Formats: sequence, structure tokens, C-alpha cells
Amino acid sequence: MNYYSESVNRLIDELSGLPGIGRKSAGRLAFHILDLPEERVKNLADSLITARQKTRLCKECFNISDEETCPICSDVKRDHSIIMVVEEPADLVAYEKTGQYEGVYHVLHGAVNPMQGIQPENIKLKELLMRLAREDVEEVIIATNSTVEGEATALWISKYVKQAGIRVTRIASGVPVGGALEYVDEMTLYRALEGRVDI
Amino acid sequence: MNYYSESVNRLIDELSGLPGIGRKSAGRLAFHILDLPEERVKNLADSLITARQKTRLCKECFNISDEETCPICSDVKRDHSIIMVVEEPADLVAYEKTGQYEGVYHVLHGAVNPMQGIQPENIKLKELLMRLAREDVEEVIIATNSTVEGEATALWISKYVKQAGIRVTRIASGVPVGGALEYVDEMTLYRALEGRVDI
Repeated sequence: MNYYSESVNRLIDELSGLPGIGRKSAGRLAFHILDLPEERVKNLADSLITARQKTRLCKECFNISDEETCPICSDVKRDHSIIMVVEEPADLVAYEKTGQYEGVYHVLHGAVNPMQGIQPENIKLKELLMRLAREDVEEVIIATNSTVEGEATALWISKYVKQAGIRVTRIASGVPVGGALEYVDEMTLYRALEGRVDI
Repeated sequence: MNYYSESVNRLIDELSGLPGIGRKSAGRLAFHILDLPEERVKNLADSLITARQKTRLCKECFNISDEETCPICSDVKRDHSIIMVVEEPADLVAYEKTGQYEGVYHVLHGAVNPMQGIQPENIKLKELLMRLAREDVEEVIIATNSTVEGEATALWISKYVKQAGIRVTRIASGVPVGGALEYVDEMTLYRALEGRVDI
């Protein structure tokens, strides 16, 4: 049943294909968009196309970039001997926001997940190993998610990186800062205990 | 601080201008969009522009429409002597989804809200009164929201419509179907009691 006009229906279809946007929010968004000045809608549409067309993956770290090499890899002030391995570009952004990391990155674009048919060759793992062979790397920090897939990927990487004689580390698991112990799950509490440090 | 490439930043800016989309969800959406096939992104962009350009307000009821007159107003099988007054096109859609309403609509595009400077002349109220003078209307059903503004608008309309000698009704306030009394607010319970009907 069509409650909307044809062009609005099409817009709602397109919007509800995006993650986290159901048909109800798509309808709300559509009505909002119809209320915007035409110029704003054109800008939005253009930003979609431009971003999709201009961005590519950095040839070094596979971060999303407008250039062949991303600003982080091009930055000579950063320590290129330390590589932090993350699953997605969004994870890289999360670490950049801390302002505390001086090394460079390697974006896998996924994690090994045999259940969903994602094998080591489907993510940028071979590229990481080639990079380690090519460059002078002292440490690989594995910052994949703390999920089954993230941990499996971390194990897989650590095995190969150790073979290459390079130091491998894993970011700590533990109680989130500001987190009340009462509400933290058992697995995290166990990890926090295991990973305790001298003070 | 720019963690994203220029074109991605622009996309995130545009997306986070939409209602209900903060910078965090805009970032997630942007990364998803960059992963889509270029064709999909072009379709999305085109649906935005087309919807904004093609749609206009129905000259009868001010519903959003691709034509001069919306499908509901053009439908001769609907009862044009009953007009349901709603605040927004989304409210019209909500009633259409019930499949139980056979009359036509009038979309106000807002409610009287002096605090926000929305006076009766800023919404499609004059147009409603002109319509009542022009057409042969037997009943006006006021289905504005059950908010202070919606109630004020309802009162304003009822005054004028009564003067014109036309029947005015207001949709019922009460306990939502499936709602447990325990969780319903006092005002709603009071209204439900006031509006009780013989069974």
C-alpha cells in the first residue's frame, strides 16, 4: 500500500537501506528533507557522490583517504616503526581522537569470521605481512575488537608477526574508565584481573 | 581536528544536519556509504533531489504530492464531506495506515505555538476555512496532536467551524490499546475516564 507519493516512496526506500534506519525513521527523514531548502538537498546529494568518488584506500595502511597516501602515513613526524592494526577506519578515528598515539595504522577492513565466510585472504592481512617484510617495523599493536572474531584475528596476526621476529602487543582488556564494577560483565572483570599491573 | 579526509568530513557534516543523526551516527553512515557500490550512492543522491524537486503540496489538502492534487483528494470513492485536520503529512500517513478512514484530510503544517512565534496565519488554517466556505462539508474531525499546541489549535479551529454551522469532532483521548493502566500517565487516565462510553 502506498501512502506516499511515488518520489517520496523511492526516497524512503533508499534511506531505509542505510544501516540503523528503519522505514519509520526513513519516513521522518524524508519529510524533513522535503522541508529543506533545495540548495541544502543538492549539497547533501553532492556530498554523497563526491565522497564516494573521491575517496579511496591509502596504499600504505588502507585507511580511507582523498589522496594516494593518507595524511597519517604521509606525516613524517609520526613513528612509522609502530603499526596499530585495527578492523575498520572508524576504529582508527577512535584512536586518533585520543590524541595519544604517535605511530601509524593498518586497517584490515574486517576480521576473520569463518562463519560468515570471511577468511584471512578476504581482509588486508596479506598486505600487512607484505608491509612488515618491506618496512622497518619494531612493534605491531593489535587493536582488533574484543569479540570472538577480533580475538581470532589477533591470534592469527600474532602468530605470523612473531615468526618475523617483530614485537607484537595487544591493547588491554579491562574495566572501562568511569565504569562501576557492579555493572561490568564477568568476562571483563576476569580480563581486568588477569591483566593487573603493579602500581 | 580532522580525523577524516576532506570529502568524508563534508559528507559527515551534511549527514549530521539531519534530525536524529548525531556526529557519531553520521560517521558510521558515512563509512557505510563509502562501502556501497557507486551506483547505489548515485541512486540515493538522485532520490533526494528528485523527491525535493517533484513534490509539492496538494492544492486541496496540502498533503505532500507529486501531482497538483494528491491521490486522496482525487479519489472520488472517498467521502469529501468529512475532513480530518492533522498537523503534519506524517499524521495523515498514520491514519491512512489504519485503513479505517474514508474521508479526506487537511494538513496544517504545524500547530499554533505563540511561544515559538507560530500564529494561526503561519499554518494552513485560513486555507481550511476557505475550503469550508467553498465545499459542502458536513464534519470536521480535528486530529491535531494531544499536546498543548495541538489542543490550542483544536480549540481555535472548533470555534470557527462551529460558527460556520458545521459539525466539529475531536479524536478521542484515552488509554492506548494494549497499554497497561499501571504505566499510563495521570492526564491520560483522567481523559479516558472523562471520555468513557456506554458498552
